[in-house]
Amino acid sequence: MSEDNSGSGYVEAEYTRDSQYISDRITADGSSRWPVEPGRYRLVAARACPWANRSIIVRRLLGLEPAISLGLCGPTHDERSWTFDLDPGGRDPVLGYERLQEAFLARDPDYSRGITVPAIVDVPSGAVVTNDFPQITLDFSTQWTAHHRDGAPDLYPEHLRAEMDDVMERIYTEVNNGVYRCGFSGSQRAYDKAYQRLFTALDWLEDRLEHRRFLMGGQITEADVRLFTTLVRFDSVYHGHFKTNRQKLSEMPVLWAYARDLFQTPGFGDTIDFPQIKEHYYVVHKDINPTQIVPAGPDTSGWLMAHGRDQLSDRPFGDGTPPGPVAAGEEVPPGHGPGGIPHR
Amino acid sequence: MSEDNSGSGYVEAEYTRDSQYISDRITADGSSRWPVEPGRYRLVAARACPWANRSIIVRRLLGLEPAISLGLCGPTHDERSWTFDLDPGGRDPVLGYERLQEAFLARDPDYSRGITVPAIVDVPSGAVVTNDFPQITLDFSTQWTAHHRDGAPDLYPEHLRAEMDDVMERIYTEVNNGVYRCGFSGSQRAYDKAYQRLFTALDWLEDRLEHRRFLMGGQITEADVRLFTTLVRFDSVYHGHFKTNRQKLSEMPVLWAYARDLFQTPGFGDTIDFPQIKEHYYVVHKDINPTQIVPAGPDTSGWLMAHGRDQLSDRPFGDGTPPGPVAAGEEVPPGHGPGGIPHR
Repeated sequence: MSEDNSGSGYVEAEYTRDSQYISDRITADGSSRWPVEPGRYRLVAARACPWANRSIIVRRLLGLEPAISLGLCGPTHDERSWTFDLDPGGRDPVLGYERLQEAFLARDPDYSRGITVPAIVDVPSGAVVTNDFPQITLDFSTQWTAHHRDGAPDLYPEHLRAEMDDVMERIYTEVNNGVYRCGFSGSQRAYDKAYQRLFTALDWLEDRLEHRRFLMGGQITEADVRLFTTLVRFDSVYHGHFKTNRQKLSEMPVLWAYARDLFQTPGFGDTIDFPQIKEHYYVVHKDINPTQIVPAGPDTSGWLMAHGRDQLSDRPFGDGTPPGPVAAGEEVPPGHGPGGIPHR
Repeated sequence: MSEDNSGSGYVEAEYTRDSQYISDRITADGSSRWPVEPGRYRLVAARACPWANRSIIVRRLLGLEPAISLGLCGPTHDERSWTFDLDPGGRDPVLGYERLQEAFLARDPDYSRGITVPAIVDVPSGAVVTNDFPQITLDFSTQWTAHHRDGAPDLYPEHLRAEMDDVMERIYTEVNNGVYRCGFSGSQRAYDKAYQRLFTALDWLEDRLEHRRFLMGGQITEADVRLFTTLVRFDSVYHGHFKTNRQKLSEMPVLWAYARDLFQTPGFGDTIDFPQIKEHYYVVHKDINPTQIVPAGPDTSGWLMAHGRDQLSDRPFGDGTPPGPVAAGEEVPPGHGPGGIPHR
């Protein structure tokens, strides 16, 4: 998503997020105009963005790298669009675009809503198929099964879906979006309410995860992916920039161990670029950080500390296996992972 | 001091603080025009301000309450002045002023520099004698001895002064002022340098205090007062607002135990008003916090945890004794001390 407040609004001083803009689905059964077809689609994401981070993680956990290519936008963007400023010449090497906006305009020349990541682009036409982030990852699990790697986990198990949908809804409204509600509150009163809502939810999660290794039990599911992308940004950005500061994540013992457990699992921490995450929020949100100075902290070396959570379950991937090494060309640059901050 | 950048400047994007404005001294030997005289002077301070906080603590440790009265400004101020908005009718009951500026103008009708706390006002003339904050507290120790309480500690022992002056100078430039240098940096480069300087100094202090209960050994001195007033604001304000975020104070084990030890000592924690501290910085510094929203966190209940530092020394006041209860009318309001933040 774009987090520069485009596509969002202040209603009675409380921050609200617009929902989706282009929500076609790619389907296995041909029920939509977009069939599953390896090599045809490109996932455009940004490591900075938590909503896009989900899609990067799920694609990797399921081993969809050979089927769906990945384009990455840089951490900052202007008022018009995310850009491909990390690529040689500033253009995505497959789509040829400088700005993600071009893919939205290829779909609809009059498109005027948010230019957001993640977006899936149909490579032949250069047009966006969907930027409906919650559906994108679920469809990776349910529609692209023929192209999953051997040992891919079931991230959306049928027998858990009813409860999972409730858990994911609460995580979305209270946590994923809850941190934004704190940071973009238009009044002290709205902020105070948002802060209470957020920490009520984090206390609930602290309880829920005390005796369960993962949100739905002993195995990783999509729900964990969705919680992780907020938790991994908590101390680096939300705690200070969005004033979600009752405690740091590192001061909530269960959630901190849970988050470290996921971080150290292949497919999670190896997608995280802390400098890009910090640069995105602190530079793009000039309205709440007018100097655009990016904090040098926090020390991130703690992400690699032992977590002890394997005592709760020893099958994080169920009948499956962890993903292998990160695909060539998709590695996070050295020094952008944990411990990149100098610390005696 | 005023922390709204008045009386300060950006030089090559690095924040620099102007030094004093009116620096007369009140002396015991009649060498200045202002003799020590109980009942004649009023200390004007603000609980929010770290520089003024020093003077409140030292006055109380030495038992100078009967000799020097105390006026308190509210936590916020406009561009012109700190104000007596906490007093009935918005006027200081002794001086009759609405704004501290009036006392500066009574001294010099053309006064145009910073209106800062702490300031000592000559009550008969209503004029500021001095706002030279580092000298004010040293003179409380050395010039007002005839009016110290029984059991008052020696906060500026002669045999330690040479080393103490060096320690206090480093604490001033690197820590007290170092946090402001981070927060008011005019460029990323200036901030990054300021952050390194600050944490280099905090690492030095972490080492120095590991086997010493206080900065100068087994007894509390003025140097501890000066370090304390920055540390007590660290997690509540500087960590987020000034981006001094390598760690929280609560993540630096020696300094955190040292700060808790002082906090729990009569004369220190009982002068601290966390809501006023937060309101001051987050509301006054609109240039770095344009929404002026005040964070609800952090949880401050940790300030009352055991510190274990009494194993290093059992005579914090040397041959003296701790001060008694806070003077009537000078108590911090209930709920403004630690633990005021709701936390399950």
